[in-house]
Amino acid sequence: MEYLQQSFSVPFNYRVWFSSSIFNSDNPLLAQVVASPGTNAHAQRKILFVFDQGLLDANPGLPEKIRRYFAVHKNVLLVDEIISIPGGESAKNDESSFRKILNAVDKHGIDRHSFVAAVGGGAVLDTVGYAAAVAHRGVKHIRIPGTVLSQNDSGVGVKNGINYFGKKNFLGTFAPPFAVINDDTLLNTLSDRHWRSGISEAVKVALIKDAAFFEWLDANAESLANRNKEAMAYLVRRCAQLHLEHIASADPFESGSSRPLDFGHWSAHKLEQLSRFDILHGEAVALGIALDSLYSVLARQLTITDAERILHLLERLGFDTYHPLMAIDNETAPLLKGLQEFREHLGGELTIMLLDGIGKGVEVHSIDTVQLQEATKQLAARAGDKQLNPTN
Amino acid sequence: MEYLQQSFSVPFNYRVWFSSSIFNSDNPLLAQVVASPGTNAHAQRKILFVFDQGLLDANPGLPEKIRRYFAVHKNVLLVDEIISIPGGESAKNDESSFRKILNAVDKHGIDRHSFVAAVGGGAVLDTVGYAAAVAHRGVKHIRIPGTVLSQNDSGVGVKNGINYFGKKNFLGTFAPPFAVINDDTLLNTLSDRHWRSGISEAVKVALIKDAAFFEWLDANAESLANRNKEAMAYLVRRCAQLHLEHIASADPFESGSSRPLDFGHWSAHKLEQLSRFDILHGEAVALGIALDSLYSVLARQLTITDAERILHLLERLGFDTYHPLMAIDNETAPLLKGLQEFREHLGGELTIMLLDGIGKGVEVHSIDTVQLQEATKQLAARAGDKQLNPTN
Repeated sequence: MEYLQQSFSVPFNYRVWFSSSIFNSDNPLLAQVVASPGTNAHAQRKILFVFDQGLLDANPGLPEKIRRYFAVHKNVLLVDEIISIPGGESAKNDESSFRKILNAVDKHGIDRHSFVAAVGGGAVLDTVGYAAAVAHRGVKHIRIPGTVLSQNDSGVGVKNGINYFGKKNFLGTFAPPFAVINDDTLLNTLSDRHWRSGISEAVKVALIKDAAFFEWLDANAESLANRNKEAMAYLVRRCAQLHLEHIASADPFESGSSRPLDFGHWSAHKLEQLSRFDILHGEAVALGIALDSLYSVLARQLTITDAERILHLLERLGFDTYHPLMAIDNETAPLLKGLQEFREHLGGELTIMLLDGIGKGVEVHSIDTVQLQEATKQLAARAGDKQLNPTN
Repeated sequence: MEYLQQSFSVPFNYRVWFSSSIFNSDNPLLAQVVASPGTNAHAQRKILFVFDQGLLDANPGLPEKIRRYFAVHKNVLLVDEIISIPGGESAKNDESSFRKILNAVDKHGIDRHSFVAAVGGGAVLDTVGYAAAVAHRGVKHIRIPGTVLSQNDSGVGVKNGINYFGKKNFLGTFAPPFAVINDDTLLNTLSDRHWRSGISEAVKVALIKDAAFFEWLDANAESLANRNKEAMAYLVRRCAQLHLEHIASADPFESGSSRPLDFGHWSAHKLEQLSRFDILHGEAVALGIALDSLYSVLARQLTITDAERILHLLERLGFDTYHPLMAIDNETAPLLKGLQEFREHLGGELTIMLLDGIGKGVEVHSIDTVQLQEATKQLAARAGDKQLNPTN
């Protein structure tokens, strides 16, 4: 049997910037980013901004600020129409936001050498990223994450997507951004709930990869809960760094069945869906960490002392560690469907990250539902105790 | 300004196979391909077939043959529902075929370790490839091209897409297939017009890259026109090889503004659209080659003798070298819009491949419309002469 072998590698490079007040005209960063190597100086490049409506409502002056910015910095032509799409999971739940972006790309002649910049939370970045990835087979995409969660986790990675057939990220691609710009001032207008929500991904990555970072989180829990900006700046940067290192060192486009960063996520995805996205992703991840930590005590080598430290840290950060949707009364409990769906999305063998210690992730390929039920019971009992003794 | 640098490379590897009667149970190739390294032995892998309706009409026994094949070769589970979508550009002109494939992927639980196999012409491969690339952020895609054009050119490459906003390939991705399998027996049922149509891409790649291949085409023009299978097998393989080498050596995902393989294509794309796709892609490419060859005489170093050889070869293969839609009467002639649209799709600076000789492509960044008009006039006159003297 004859064949021709095709083999090539495609290099991907992008920077994750950390700055403040990036839309102030005296901050040259954004202008430098759009003029950086990889952009074509011959072409009349344009930049189209897509905003998270929630972020825009909290910062109504931003479009005017952006117009002033590009009136001063003229190396790229600002598309005058600044569009917005709903924030949160609703941006991804139907195709209207996706189509709105494609329409703007077409109407304003955004080509492969021009930019679509997304400013907002993870769902908005996912939706804009998907539209940018498939329009003209990929226009340049700049991510300007507007939440803790997107600045330290989803916004710095290579994935995008929208929901379809009611399934999370059924449609999407792996498409590295042109650049990511983290502006810490965008976090100022977040609600306490959204501020907190992003911290659970830092706890997660610390638990599976970096015990020293866990110690830092443990030592700074109250500062973080009380919105200390310096503490948050460190957290965002360290968490983003661990995330970037993981992507580059392993399997960036996830050709295998494993997704090692998804500790606590099989149940988190399901809890978000079961709650119709009332539970925020970061809150669901905190619940998932709590569950899989106790399960790791029962099924793996994590000590009960370490599991208690983890639960206590989550509580000090302001997270719940139990939700009634986690109840496992029998083999058909809704939560258990999350295991099957987690396997299906990646395909192949079920692969779940657990803990053999703080900073020591370990992958397993089966879950004992009896032990899982025991873990949820312990979490429920603990939550009940807390209600009885609120001073604990 | 602080930043983290992200850098990684993603390797892509796939084979383009050449075989005969691949759905006969005694041909082990297809079973070997789905069992090859890169597939996950732990998972229950499935294969979903999507057919070009035209190919299915010409080969109505194929679905039953495929069912028998996978009844014998059980290393992958055949999805019992074998679906079909219209062939030709209509598969790409609305989203219904794209959605039909996504529905089947969802309904039959095709995950990232399972396969979607497309059997058909370039438009069908483009549509199925796009659906496979975005479903679950990419399921494994096997291309089984059913036309000369797709076996030697579009089917072996890394691009997919559908039309949107009436614009060719407005939506799409760069996504290498898992494997390509060229079955020469699928060409037997092609009409003469479709058989011929794919040959123009071989003329094109010979002209810009390989003078020896042009000599071979010149020596074998009558065999090719008369459907000699051995001649076609050589053409398909050599053309596919040149195409693969080009992709691997240059810029696989086209990050620049240049598309060196698109000699003759700026006008070809426009002529297809102006004719509402009555002119087949390969026929349009022949017209585009004729035009840009004469233009290369006027604007570059191609000799009139070599241009005549090119035109004569196209005619011996059975192609027209002029069409009334190519007329340039003034600056607003429809054909001229093709230059602008060609630039817009890639973005950046206009970049057009021309010839400085046979086998010697050269890129230019502007086109003289007066000389272009002269070239179309010469083609029109030549076509008129042929009509007056049909024995020529």
